[in-house]
Amino acid sequence: MPVNYTTPAADQLFAVAGVRLGVAEAGIRKQDRRDLALVALDAGCTVAGVFTRNRFCAAPVQLCRDHLAGGKEIRALVINTGIANAGTGEPGRQAAQDTCAAVGELLGVAPDQVLPFSTGVILENLPVDSIRAGLPAALADLKADNWHAAAHAIMTTDTVAKAASRTVAVDGKKVTISGISKGAGMIKPNMATMLGFLATDAGIPQPMLERLVKEAADESFNCITVDGDTSTNDSFIMIASGRSGAVFARESDAGWAEVRAAIIAVAVELAQAIVRDGEGATKFITVAVAGGKDNEECRQVGYAIGHSPLVKTAFFASDPNLGRILAAIGYAGIADLDVDRVSVWLDDVLVAENGGRAEAYQEDDGARVMKQSEITVRVDLGRGNAAAKVYTCDFSYDYVKINADYRS
Amino acid sequence: MPVNYTTPAADQLFAVAGVRLGVAEAGIRKQDRRDLALVALDAGCTVAGVFTRNRFCAAPVQLCRDHLAGGKEIRALVINTGIANAGTGEPGRQAAQDTCAAVGELLGVAPDQVLPFSTGVILENLPVDSIRAGLPAALADLKADNWHAAAHAIMTTDTVAKAASRTVAVDGKKVTISGISKGAGMIKPNMATMLGFLATDAGIPQPMLERLVKEAADESFNCITVDGDTSTNDSFIMIASGRSGAVFARESDAGWAEVRAAIIAVAVELAQAIVRDGEGATKFITVAVAGGKDNEECRQVGYAIGHSPLVKTAFFASDPNLGRILAAIGYAGIADLDVDRVSVWLDDVLVAENGGRAEAYQEDDGARVMKQSEITVRVDLGRGNAAAKVYTCDFSYDYVKINADYRS
Repeated sequence: MPVNYTTPAADQLFAVAGVRLGVAEAGIRKQDRRDLALVALDAGCTVAGVFTRNRFCAAPVQLCRDHLAGGKEIRALVINTGIANAGTGEPGRQAAQDTCAAVGELLGVAPDQVLPFSTGVILENLPVDSIRAGLPAALADLKADNWHAAAHAIMTTDTVAKAASRTVAVDGKKVTISGISKGAGMIKPNMATMLGFLATDAGIPQPMLERLVKEAADESFNCITVDGDTSTNDSFIMIASGRSGAVFARESDAGWAEVRAAIIAVAVELAQAIVRDGEGATKFITVAVAGGKDNEECRQVGYAIGHSPLVKTAFFASDPNLGRILAAIGYAGIADLDVDRVSVWLDDVLVAENGGRAEAYQEDDGARVMKQSEITVRVDLGRGNAAAKVYTCDFSYDYVKINADYRS
Repeated sequence: MPVNYTTPAADQLFAVAGVRLGVAEAGIRKQDRRDLALVALDAGCTVAGVFTRNRFCAAPVQLCRDHLAGGKEIRALVINTGIANAGTGEPGRQAAQDTCAAVGELLGVAPDQVLPFSTGVILENLPVDSIRAGLPAALADLKADNWHAAAHAIMTTDTVAKAASRTVAVDGKKVTISGISKGAGMIKPNMATMLGFLATDAGIPQPMLERLVKEAADESFNCITVDGDTSTNDSFIMIASGRSGAVFARESDAGWAEVRAAIIAVAVELAQAIVRDGEGATKFITVAVAGGKDNEECRQVGYAIGHSPLVKTAFFASDPNLGRILAAIGYAGIADLDVDRVSVWLDDVLVAENGGRAEAYQEDDGARVMKQSEITVRVDLGRGNAAAKVYTCDFSYDYVKINADYRS
């Protein structure tokens, strides 16, 4: 059960003109489940992405990078679940290429106009024949109001499909933004998440879209962690079709700030949905670190807290065992941190200051906050003006159960 | 149940001349348990230590550093379990000082000739009165053949007491080395472990002992991880009484290599015992990384594998889900790692090479190794001659249970 998250109804996920989605049951690893999604883009879209920094990055990630760098117009995305096509060496690269070729052939575009994505088990070979056999059904299913089905077709250990949509009015034109994401474990993205796709019918030139996808990732998918494991397949893709008529040329254009904010809000919603559905999660935790010298050290502290199995099990137990939070701050790697200037709050309850327990702190107040399903840990490092947020979840029996059983 | 570890019998833990130990039930946090240990050193011992790098280091750690730096002869160690005296600010420092003063008064030495150690819950105040009241019983209990009792008196969530002893003959003289350690969670030492104490009756001059304690820590306590959490109280202390008559002046002395090797072997045994008794551990895993450009990057890869909750749950499940190991290698932070040169073995079974699954690898072979209680993951990075080892354990339901329940 995800923490305070339900998949929006199909009619709450708005069509983005210029973008059509289709799904199929291709039997890639299991039978009778939607495991293949095809996204067809009209001519004239711009597309940009950010990808995992894992050196064992998957074959499809390598191909995505190549195809985006190639500069040809991207006309399709193909996404499979079940097999990650990672740790598969040269045969894996060939399988990803064959997948792009099959999609290209069906749609009448070149293979390098197709971006491939895979998620699932690592170190097993991608069954390209199954994908090839499933593609015609996905093609036949292509439609603009199909985000709901697509969100389901990319799930692995996710317990719910993840999607978000919103509209923003700009100069009399309605701009729509819709997105889907997947992921529940192996979540500590570095430059992107497991899989996230976001499309808008605003028009955004390529260099501006490339800046935006990085900025949006830094405020969303790059702020989350479930277990600290950076996946081999993390990808976050942004598509801009321009079909709303609201077309931007530069960041100073009127209305851009609103569109940018709406796009980032959708990205944050998609990223948080992954944490809310984190494997075994029973609580959603925001770690907000302020008072740092720079953004990076705030993130370091946020991730030290967000990764600590001791902190995460204490949240699961609703135990205000706050020493574990202090310990995590202390080992986060800020060599000259003066702990006497550090303050820590659970929501609005001041729990620690001056290097120790706050004088007025009562354990009952801490216990009350710890029982909530949404908790903010606020840290002030007392050494500067930078800030950063990390979103995480607690660590429960079910995390172990899910990960001990995943392949069986 | 620890993995292939039982506490040596009391008569297998040899007395070290010049070092006497006593324990008491001081009721520091719980009644009816030995929770206070006193170690009295004869005049003429050298003492050196390494300590946590956690910025929220505990008050006793700060005092230990000060007293060792002060240069006075150390004549006693006082160790309590139950309360860590960490995250306790100025009152915590005062409590540690008061403890040293009480010990000094009883033994007729100055407070800064006493080293204090605490372990247990963070962020709670040390009950100095209980310690003061317990000290006379510990003093009355002082004896040289008391390592077994001392090992018990420093336990927290440990399920077994941890101790090791060996002797080595040098030039007709018998050198004895005995040590104890504690720790089961919050284990990713940085310069030392939770608590480790090692004494020998070899004579070792101060500067040489200081080099040795660092070297020994780097091969033992600095190679282990249970949950990646670096404690606020990590301390590893080495004592040399010289009472065996085997007295060394420099590292080139005859017999030193043998004594040094025996001391490091005891340190490794004590450190491994902590992992074997890691919270919820059912398996002991050695991650041996070779072929690195330097020792540090090998350790980085070792720790990435050793910390990954996904890898550790797969070990718990005996599931050769090797993609998780590859993913951890990939995100360990070696920016220019060429994954096509990386090879991975489970014991002697080659599982991955050339960036993917080894051609001859059969899942049955992997599954067979994964069922063992002791497993070595060998990684060759294929880029140099450096190597490093990390010792870790698997991640089970019981880890969550223990840490969700610890304070209750």
